[in-house]
Amino acid sequence: MKFTLQKVCPKTGARAGLLETEHGVIETPVFMPVATKGSVRGIPWETIKELGAQIVLANTYHLHIRPGDKLIQKAGGLHKWSNWSGPFLTDSGGFQVFSFARRGKAKIMDSGVTFKDDLEGKMHFMGPKESMEIQKNLGSDIVMAFDHCPPADATREGIDYSVNLTTEWTKQCMDYELQSHQSLFPIVQGGRFEDLRHKSLKELVKLDAPGYALGGVSVGESREEVDRIVQTMANELPSNKPRYLMGVGTPRDLLMSVTSGMDMFDCILPTRLSRHGSFFRKNPEGWKTESVTQKEFTEDFNNPIMKNCQCPTCSQFSRAYIKHLFKRSEITVYYYIAVHNLYTLINLTKNMRKAILEDRFVEFIKSNGILGESSTEKEYNLVNT
Amino acid sequence: MKFTLQKVCPKTGARAGLLETEHGVIETPVFMPVATKGSVRGIPWETIKELGAQIVLANTYHLHIRPGDKLIQKAGGLHKWSNWSGPFLTDSGGFQVFSFARRGKAKIMDSGVTFKDDLEGKMHFMGPKESMEIQKNLGSDIVMAFDHCPPADATREGIDYSVNLTTEWTKQCMDYELQSHQSLFPIVQGGRFEDLRHKSLKELVKLDAPGYALGGVSVGESREEVDRIVQTMANELPSNKPRYLMGVGTPRDLLMSVTSGMDMFDCILPTRLSRHGSFFRKNPEGWKTESVTQKEFTEDFNNPIMKNCQCPTCSQFSRAYIKHLFKRSEITVYYYIAVHNLYTLINLTKNMRKAILEDRFVEFIKSNGILGESSTEKEYNLVNT
Repeated sequence: MKFTLQKVCPKTGARAGLLETEHGVIETPVFMPVATKGSVRGIPWETIKELGAQIVLANTYHLHIRPGDKLIQKAGGLHKWSNWSGPFLTDSGGFQVFSFARRGKAKIMDSGVTFKDDLEGKMHFMGPKESMEIQKNLGSDIVMAFDHCPPADATREGIDYSVNLTTEWTKQCMDYELQSHQSLFPIVQGGRFEDLRHKSLKELVKLDAPGYALGGVSVGESREEVDRIVQTMANELPSNKPRYLMGVGTPRDLLMSVTSGMDMFDCILPTRLSRHGSFFRKNPEGWKTESVTQKEFTEDFNNPIMKNCQCPTCSQFSRAYIKHLFKRSEITVYYYIAVHNLYTLINLTKNMRKAILEDRFVEFIKSNGILGESSTEKEYNLVNT
Repeated sequence: MKFTLQKVCPKTGARAGLLETEHGVIETPVFMPVATKGSVRGIPWETIKELGAQIVLANTYHLHIRPGDKLIQKAGGLHKWSNWSGPFLTDSGGFQVFSFARRGKAKIMDSGVTFKDDLEGKMHFMGPKESMEIQKNLGSDIVMAFDHCPPADATREGIDYSVNLTTEWTKQCMDYELQSHQSLFPIVQGGRFEDLRHKSLKELVKLDAPGYALGGVSVGESREEVDRIVQTMANELPSNKPRYLMGVGTPRDLLMSVTSGMDMFDCILPTRLSRHGSFFRKNPEGWKTESVTQKEFTEDFNNPIMKNCQCPTCSQFSRAYIKHLFKRSEITVYYYIAVHNLYTLINLTKNMRKAILEDRFVEFIKSNGILGESSTEKEYNLVNT
């Protein structure tokens, strides 16, 4: 894997880059749709391709339990099995495994985690070695290190323990021999404590991995805390390597995080929101999440759910039609809304990239609702500290 | 609307024709996907178009209740409202309304039916005039006459009553002034009684409508009864007008019905079956409905659900992948399977048409599992009686 930093916005630190993998070149910043069980929920692969997705994420835990990573290995790996020929990133399974712990269904040891799965209630053990073995079998292009994910409200002591264990586990992951096309990304932990974040980052950067991720930023913290962590940590990450912000986000979050210097993002929101009839919408005061059930949509036959949006849904259908389908639980509407949401995030990152390359990034984000006049550039100043 | 009979298979009576509507020319035989509430369940319109659908069906009852035919009229009619620019056929609402009667939730009078709707429990009245008014508001290209649908097990007396009422109501429908682009099709009733079917047909044919439908053939009868009705009645219908067999069917049913001389078909099976993991599959002994959960699919990475199928799903995905998605309730799989099922029916009618036009229809249906060696041509002889 090779990362080339093409341009950095001198005012904000926002970056445009190229990440070359065996399954394709990824232009950053990039939003990665989530195919938890090997399919982006409700969206056919053809559509994922048409929307311009460059890389998708799949979940190690889910695929390990069913159909099993060994079955996927037999099929020739994730790419052949799913017929998505572009790059795949797999998470480490840690996030799911630790969510079991929070529900009292797992036991955490220094060597890994013992847990009962949701489906069959079988006992499993997952540690750094197991996570690497599964991801090797899956054959993803980017492999995430097995990290210790503390809850957002963990004590300082708990988070310090998690940082230390993450470093130790990451070392074990780095020692594991993956397939030649696979690259390992460590995950910086440290919760809401700036000094622990720095400690985690410092220890992981020593390992000289091909890319780095910020973890534990969408596990229950406030938006302000996430902003603060991202703004503080992004530019501490090696500048010559891709920087991945896990589990983010919304258009607003992507604008803020690219501005802070992050390159890669994933989130299930575009598809999950669609099942609740919610869509991303740009308003004069910035991006919001709104409902297709709003009263004004009932008889609006002439406007799409978001005016001036060029996505396939907004190019074809009126507010009245989309609202009707949602109210009648017609499953096609989950597709239509998710397509709008995915298009929004994919297109937003593409447009940010273009603006960075063309030296007009600050103008771009001003016109997109952060760093605007009304925000008195407070957020912008924060970015630059 | 103009119907041109292009060719008739001299051995079977199977027909190829052209049906010209204001929203497009339909090549028959034709399978019409069902968009009950204004959307084919789970299948985006782009896909419906790509699959080669030429006309879709929408349901008068469902759209009348929600969002209301008056709202759709305000939107400019079904085509503008849904953004499907091809032809629409709407059913009369009769089928749904009479299913309420069977559940004791409706009162049938000589003038129509009083019923309580499912959604809000409001009282409604629907008779021939109301059905016409709703369908006029919807603006469909083909409008179905409001018929009296008896249950499959009705007595001879009950079915005779239903035939008489259907004739009376159809006359009232014919007198109603629809939009200029709309054409009314009467529906032949008569249940399983041949003489009552003939009586119904004879009275309706007198009205000189632009096309005719056989109704009450998928309301609970045995396959043999449906075959017998279709084989007996098809060629009694005017040969210079399109013949529509309502609610049919499977690949086998389409083969049999086209062979009998029918031209148009609709069915919810392709999408409904997909939600149960069932797909149409051609076997040496004919077409069957099978499950994607079958044991041999678990590790079959090299074959699609149906070998030699050129549909988008079979061109892209293995049995193992499709089975996994279904077992994990990944909603994308309902799309993938429905696409295979819709493609199968649409493509089968296209191929039958081609075979009719090229004077090789008997060979075509022999190789497609009816009229085969094994069936001792019994079915074929029956067709020719």
